[in-house]
Amino acid sequence: MLEEILRQVQAGNLSVSEAKENLATYENLGFAKVDHHRKNRQGFPEVVYGEGKTKEQIICIIQAIRSKGQNVLVTRISKEKANYVLREYPEFSYNETAQILFWKKKTSKNDSYQGYIAIVCAGTSDLRVAEEAAVTAEALGSEVRRFYDVGVAGIHRLFDNIEQIQQATVSVVVAGMEGALPSVVGGLVSHPVIAVPTSVGYGANFNGLSALLTMLNSCASGISVVNIDNGFGAAYNAVLIDHLVKGDKSE
Amino acid sequence: MLEEILRQVQAGNLSVSEAKENLATYENLGFAKVDHHRKNRQGFPEVVYGEGKTKEQIICIIQAIRSKGQNVLVTRISKEKANYVLREYPEFSYNETAQILFWKKKTSKNDSYQGYIAIVCAGTSDLRVAEEAAVTAEALGSEVRRFYDVGVAGIHRLFDNIEQIQQATVSVVVAGMEGALPSVVGGLVSHPVIAVPTSVGYGANFNGLSALLTMLNSCASGISVVNIDNGFGAAYNAVLIDHLVKGDKSE
Amino acid sequence: MLEEILRQVQAGNLSVSEAKENLATYENLGFAKVDHHRKNRQGFPEVVYGEGKTKEQIICIIQAIRSKGQNVLVTRISKEKANYVLREYPEFSYNETAQILFWKKKTSKNDSYQGYIAIVCAGTSDLRVAEEAAVTAEALGSEVRRFYDVGVAGIHRLFDNIEQIQQATVSVVVAGMEGALPSVVGGLVSHPVIAVPTSVGYGANFNGLSALLTMLNSCASGISVVNIDNGFGAAYNAVLIDHLVKGDKSE
Amino acid sequence: MLEEILRQVQAGNLSVSEAKENLATYENLGFAKVDHHRKNRQGFPEVVYGEGKTKEQIICIIQAIRSKGQNVLVTRISKEKANYVLREYPEFSYNETAQILFWKKKTSKNDSYQGYIAIVCAGTSDLRVAEEAAVTAEALGSEVRRFYDVGVAGIHRLFDNIEQIQQATVSVVVAGMEGALPSVVGGLVSHPVIAVPTSVGYGANFNGLSALLTMLNSCASGISVVNIDNGFGAAYNAVLIDHLVKGDKSE
Amino acid sequence: MLEEILRQVQAGNLSVSEAKENLATYENLGFAKVDHHRKNRQGFPEVVYGEGKTKEQIICIIQAIRSKGQNVLVTRISKEKANYVLREYPEFSYNETAQILFWKKKTSKNDSYQGYIAIVCAGTSDLRVAEEAAVTAEALGSEVRRFYDVGVAGIHRLFDNIEQIQQATVSVVVAGMEGALPSVVGGLVSHPVIAVPTSVGYGANFNGLSALLTMLNSCASGISVVNIDNGFGAAYNAVLIDHLVKGDKSE
Amino acid sequence: MLEEILRQVQAGNLSVSEAKENLATYENLGFAKVDHHRKNRQGFPEVVYGEGKTKEQIICIIQAIRSKGQNVLVTRISKEKANYVLREYPEFSYNETAQILFWKKKTSKNDSYQGYIAIVCAGTSDLRVAEEAAVTAEALGSEVRRFYDVGVAGIHRLFDNIEQIQQATVSVVVAGMEGALPSVVGGLVSHPVIAVPTSVGYGANFNGLSALLTMLNSCASGISVVNIDNGFGAAYNAVLIDHLVKGDKSE
Amino acid sequence: MLEEILRQVQAGNLSVSEAKENLATYENLGFAKVDHHRKNRQGFPEVVYGEGKTKEQIICIIQAIRSKGQNVLVTRISKEKANYVLREYPEFSYNETAQILFWKKKTSKNDSYQGYIAIVCAGTSDLRVAEEAAVTAEALGSEVRRFYDVGVAGIHRLFDNIEQIQQATVSVVVAGMEGALPSVVGGLVSHPVIAVPTSVGYGANFNGLSALLTMLNSCASGISVVNIDNGFGAAYNAVLIDHLVKGDKSE
Amino acid sequence: MLEEILRQVQAGNLSVSEAKENLATYENLGFAKVDHHRKNRQGFPEVVYGEGKTKEQIICIIQAIRSKGQNVLVTRISKEKANYVLREYPEFSYNETAQILFWKKKTSKNDSYQGYIAIVCAGTSDLRVAEEAAVTAEALGSEVRRFYDVGVAGIHRLFDNIEQIQQATVSVVVAGMEGALPSVVGGLVSHPVIAVPTSVGYGANFNGLSALLTMLNSCASGISVVNIDNGFGAAYNAVLIDHLVKGDKSE
Repeated sequence: MLEEILRQVQAGNLSVSEAKENLATYENLGFAKVDHHRKNRQGFPEVVYGEGKTKEQIICIIQAIRSKGQNVLVTRISKEKANYVLREYPEFSYNETAQILFWKKKTSKNDSYQGYIAIVCAGTSDLRVAEEAAVTAEALGSEVRRFYDVGVAGIHRLFDNIEQIQQATVSVVVAGMEGALPSVVGGLVSHPVIAVPTSVGYGANFNGLSALLTMLNSCASGISVVNIDNGFGAAYNAVLIDHLVKGDKSE
Repeated sequence: MLEEILRQVQAGNLSVSEAKENLATYENLGFAKVDHHRKNRQGFPEVVYGEGKTKEQIICIIQAIRSKGQNVLVTRISKEKANYVLREYPEFSYNETAQILFWKKKTSKNDSYQGYIAIVCAGTSDLRVAEEAAVTAEALGSEVRRFYDVGVAGIHRLFDNIEQIQQATVSVVVAGMEGALPSVVGGLVSHPVIAVPTSVGYGANFNGLSALLTMLNSCASGISVVNIDNGFGAAYNAVLIDHLVKGDKSE
Repeated sequence: MLEEILRQVQAGNLSVSEAKENLATYENLGFAKVDHHRKNRQGFPEVVYGEGKTKEQIICIIQAIRSKGQNVLVTRISKEKANYVLREYPEFSYNETAQILFWKKKTSKNDSYQGYIAIVCAGTSDLRVAEEAAVTAEALGSEVRRFYDVGVAGIHRLFDNIEQIQQATVSVVVAGMEGALPSVVGGLVSHPVIAVPTSVGYGANFNGLSALLTMLNSCASGISVVNIDNGFGAAYNAVLIDHLVKGDKSE
Repeated sequence: MLEEILRQVQAGNLSVSEAKENLATYENLGFAKVDHHRKNRQGFPEVVYGEGKTKEQIICIIQAIRSKGQNVLVTRISKEKANYVLREYPEFSYNETAQILFWKKKTSKNDSYQGYIAIVCAGTSDLRVAEEAAVTAEALGSEVRRFYDVGVAGIHRLFDNIEQIQQATVSVVVAGMEGALPSVVGGLVSHPVIAVPTSVGYGANFNGLSALLTMLNSCASGISVVNIDNGFGAAYNAVLIDHLVKGDKSE
Repeated sequence: MLEEILRQVQAGNLSVSEAKENLATYENLGFAKVDHHRKNRQGFPEVVYGEGKTKEQIICIIQAIRSKGQNVLVTRISKEKANYVLREYPEFSYNETAQILFWKKKTSKNDSYQGYIAIVCAGTSDLRVAEEAAVTAEALGSEVRRFYDVGVAGIHRLFDNIEQIQQATVSVVVAGMEGALPSVVGGLVSHPVIAVPTSVGYGANFNGLSALLTMLNSCASGISVVNIDNGFGAAYNAVLIDHLVKGDKSE
Repeated sequence: MLEEILRQVQAGNLSVSEAKENLATYENLGFAKVDHHRKNRQGFPEVVYGEGKTKEQIICIIQAIRSKGQNVLVTRISKEKANYVLREYPEFSYNETAQILFWKKKTSKNDSYQGYIAIVCAGTSDLRVAEEAAVTAEALGSEVRRFYDVGVAGIHRLFDNIEQIQQATVSVVVAGMEGALPSVVGGLVSHPVIAVPTSVGYGANFNGLSALLTMLNSCASGISVVNIDNGFGAAYNAVLIDHLVKGDKSE
Repeated sequence: MLEEILRQVQAGNLSVSEAKENLATYENLGFAKVDHHRKNRQGFPEVVYGEGKTKEQIICIIQAIRSKGQNVLVTRISKEKANYVLREYPEFSYNETAQILFWKKKTSKNDSYQGYIAIVCAGTSDLRVAEEAAVTAEALGSEVRRFYDVGVAGIHRLFDNIEQIQQATVSVVVAGMEGALPSVVGGLVSHPVIAVPTSVGYGANFNGLSALLTMLNSCASGISVVNIDNGFGAAYNAVLIDHLVKGDKSE
Repeated sequence: MLEEILRQVQAGNLSVSEAKENLATYENLGFAKVDHHRKNRQGFPEVVYGEGKTKEQIICIIQAIRSKGQNVLVTRISKEKANYVLREYPEFSYNETAQILFWKKKTSKNDSYQGYIAIVCAGTSDLRVAEEAAVTAEALGSEVRRFYDVGVAGIHRLFDNIEQIQQATVSVVVAGMEGALPSVVGGLVSHPVIAVPTSVGYGANFNGLSALLTMLNSCASGISVVNIDNGFGAAYNAVLIDHLVKGDKSE
């Protein structure tokens, strides 16, 4: 691209100031291009982290995104703030458990692709994080199947579902307390497992540290870990993998 | 017992100094009796922790124990120190993996009792701790069955053995790395599980902290935990339970 | 059981689809059997952890349990939620200190068995945890004796009660602050001691970490540890041991 | 598969004992199948962790693997142990920096697939871990490109290489000290980034804890983390993703 | 100074009691002199830390400072307390984001000096700390330029501003989450960087510990670190350096 | 004293330079006086910490101390370094367990004072620290009585000695593992207890952290704590108290 | 005492049941005697820790103590609870900063003794803890002098008071933030220093951990440490020392 | 610069490929320029961290640096490796305590500038780190004055030197154990203080964590902190400040 611009300057087709602007754009484009890649492929230009932002700030960012005709995804947004936004944008969806607000353009489905992301969750108290992952993945355009309350203390519940989990493209495994579920799932599937420790527990759980360490030390291969309670981050990773497999890496 | 002594003093059958000695003995007996209970029931008057003791000190303590005609159990004793003792006491047994030296009087078996302690171990690197548990339990007079290398990363290995583990009186479950095995076993058996975290691992394992926290936070009921690498302590607990069930709490 | 099913298929007594269902059941039964064992022996099919559940969810789970005619045990349930349940099920009992709600079928007592669980507690501020243990054990069908406020700072209080503690089948020892009591009790009794650190304390207590480490490092043998404030877990362990000794492992 | 076996029993084509063995196999196959999946797709039946194993044990495991005609991969194996193995198996390759020993069957390349894994590494002292990742990925059959010594303290070195990194299927980013590199790379690429903290550093680095926390808290999306120094684990994850994209998920 | 006083005593120009007072003053002056240095050079005799002080106490301290005709700077003061003070001193300024209240005498500017402090900030949630730094530096008499929301996850935003940052005398770099920004800035500038970790983040962030460790372990040279959220402290350091360069070290 | 010097300057009895030197001396004396107090009362001008010093450095410091005719106390000095010093100063004493080298002038005993310091020690592995305390106290001129191997796991051993411990002026209580002994002693005596955690233990002991936290959280009153393994520091404290009681605070 | 009782039984002056009761009393007296010692010497039979107790419980304990005609000391009691007690016992004193409620019998002063406890405090935010120490010491009958706001950041304030501090019998030194004050005081005085870390600070202070570690690692001799914010505990220690010196150890 | 290149392309004075190379260089120069700034001003193009590098690697890097005629600075290099280098480059200097090897071109001194860096050090065991700082600063061209062994436990040693320290441009204050010295110095000087915690200490020092936290929490203003034992980093910061003041920021 640099060469092209230079040639046009040489040929007199581009003035110095135009070239300068283009190259500046190029410089910015160098990094903004990445953002465009992301937007084109994933359907979302930027994800808004709602925690610590006022409802006015959130509306303001949403307007900027909508003005470019793009999809919207706001995570960690309370019901009260979401309702405020919904009055303005009644076409948006809000999932209260996941604390996610989003709006997505209708897209034609890639019919041939059958892949899905398995969201596997140990206990009912980990649901909030699991739903943050599930709704994020759906909002970012992936197919999701939920396998909830299949923790290791009653491992037969996992085995009743293991074949469906094995056929997923990638699994997001959410667990609090001792966080042992990803190790067991990781030993039973042959696709990547993204483990999400939750802060569910008490005492020597130390707000999720226990589950985090468990997952980092997993003796099963194929497991990587995100921050405590970071359902969004795990889903984002899973969606990147799902999109790679779907094959729309076609730019 | 106090009343009896006082009555004998009243009756003139016991002099004041004799009574004083008896009562002193009583006081000491009050606590020493516990020691006798322990010795009678478990067959070992005192367990010697070999680490940090010289071979001369160990010999010296063994002589004191033997002079009372009692059984001997030395834990965490290196091969070199053990060989030094074995030259003096060739009838002793030494288990190098477990680092345990012991000698036991022949005892008639309680034939009717079929109970055993299951020693369950996640990986081959946890063997040292598992063997410390197994040999300790055997030296203290319990039946032991070993279920090694049945970690959660290949959980079918556990399921191939689960029925035998379920029939044990009590399980000692040894695991390093993420330490998830006790949670899985705890969900499959209906007897007490004593969990032993090991220091096997690296990085965010923090010398066994990861496995320790996992076990303390287990969402399965019926699990209690001992110190990192404390195979001896877990076995001691298991033997106490095994003896209670065996029914020789008959003093 | 597998062989039997196959023989019936061979003999034409069982259709393929029936056999398939049976074997599926078998697979599930393989793990669900464990649950049945547990229910039969302990009188409770499942313990409900009340924290983080709404009163509606709790009622819902209770209905499911009651519909199978089984006993009910809900831990960590606030007075307000408990009152909500009690309006529906006035025959239930609620213990406010222990924060436990339960209902138990009348059962004929095993008359010959004299064993009991000693619940030993260091200070009055540890009472909540001690009562969680005591009420859990009682609800699960064990005899309990309470020895409260016998902490090491005034150790004569412990000695006034030590003989009764020594005669228990198993002790649950609850302590906050420095958590030294289990070590002292462990040195005086010859049965298993289950130690419960509490989060009582301030400053360098670090919400129970101090007591937890103390108990894990105890130089007395026969001590195992559960999570901070986990009175329920300690009692559950103690009841498993008590039931083993009681001898109703008769299936 | 279960139905098929039952039908054959019904039809008399399979005796009860044959069916029993098959179903046992089935049960095992249920989990072993996973292993087969893995082996077929990845070309390695099992990875041997060399640390803590004697050279005799390693030879013994290798013989078992070779007897099934399969590829071999041994990680964390010292030069001295590797030389011992190489005398027996001179056709094996040993990479001293990566401490990896491996042998791979010649395989026809999937010509149409151009994807590769970018191994990005902050400093020269992180090389050992980066090479463990690179050699693992190559041994498991993926194409690898190395981008070493591109740490954030001289960020122009990264920018000189960023386009090539952006075109990879997945990146493994290795960094010690403050571990900031994955955040920067994560903000510049649109594929999954697997971050590997290393134990390189001193003082408040706490043996890699600093880099680990940095990576878990990354404000860039699309990053997941493995244990400190776990180059193998990161590569294994990357290879799983690479294989998914390559499309040989065709069983 | 001591010699001078002694000579005056010798010469009879100073009585013993006067000399004693002077020397006492000297002793105090020895340390108070430092305070005077500070006041003269920086324009503020003492900074008031508002947190934990009542509004009455703050008014009281302000009166003492004002009675000496000096500038006032109160940090970490809530809007409510500030309003209370502003009713009494309407000429004061309050910055709500920075939570700083101050009053400064008009001073003639050092015209020839063009230096400024760059306040660089990773994300919008770190703003409170960045503003505490910026307003402190301004109140203490330095020129400030703000470069906000230039975190490493979208590093092109930093590069758009890097030349202006490079021309500063000293940079204060504020970042939460993984805290990687100071390392990147440190590698691009040739002046001192004072890094401020913030407590912004969740989970394995541990209230700013993650960012703190990152900054302490930075592989870029020229970075020093202050306490978590200590915007004031960083600014104070930067102002000391700015004043040194400005050259008014002329006493 | 300042006034006196000034008057002599005024009177011409002291030149300015003499006064200046005196006042400098005064200033130094102001702090050095403390040192003199210490030396006079405690019999040792300065304690030498031997760890990390070469034998030549140690000899050099000893010569400086001896040249002023004062007593010598070197702690944490290995046998090999001590022997080097003993060749030069054969009149010195070396205690190998305590790793202390010292020399003391003959002093007339304070006959009327019967007080002593009780050095109480939990286990034989804590001996090194207990002896560091005991020998330090003796070298600093206090009477010491040793009560070793009286840990809480066999608490009757403590009770056999408690009366003698109760009659001490102050107790130094040394314990590793869970460090519970000071709490028990503190509840039984009415004098100050100085607790010394040792690094004896393994696993969740974390090199003495467990015992340290236990002692800081003791529910018994009258206990203060020194650093892990700091037998010297505890003894120094005890000697200060012992000297206060002895009444030779007579300067 | 035991001998005396036995002789009286022998002589028929004491019945068996009387002797038994006496010896039981003796046994209890063995430990309760300690309590009596404490009460007689210190003027308080038991200190009530008010935190976590209801006002009704506090009244109840106070009544028990008053019924024996003894002094009362309640620590960590809120103004609201204290007012409740004061309505019943208007003769009690309440110190709101210290959060202490107490009542003391008039006692004749030991006129000849001039000793006092120095309560030294770094900053105004540490006042609550310093006052807890000061009021406790006064309530337990010691003379106290307060030296507040003399922290190391303006060390001349300390030097203005150092002589008075040096003349104390014992110092309690209270400091938050970095907790450096005890080290400086410890280097300037020749009596025992009891250091109290406070939880005052933020960020890397970790609720007082920073100050606690500083004090445990002090390079000055003669310093021992109590728990974070434990002003009561430090004062209790200081009073024990003060009483020893006062010489009323005369029972 | 970009505009200039474009104009020359337009004017035909620069071919497209030349322009491309220049702009590539420009891009690189954009960041490499920083490096040049650094080199020109500080006299060292790059500092070599010797730890973990072989002597051959070090020689190799030195050759590259020397080939550009630049100064050389190698930190953390052992005597043995240094001797290897010195055989090749006998004109280099090696400081064994500091473990630094360097070579510097003769430079004309900036005569008018009188500023110096004060290296202040608490104890003799912190010398290694203090010397790393001192020698680094000298090698980078700054004047240095050493104030060693002036720790807070004998604070008069600090006061004897405080005036000289006060007149420095910037202070580097090195301390281990409790690390209190920077707080005291920070309260006495009006220039920036760069604090260096060292790993000197034992027990609750946790390898320098204690001193690190102390310094981060300092209540004195004007203190910033570097990593544990990072004498080099502190000196580098100090030199940046010193150079700013010296005024040779003249490019």
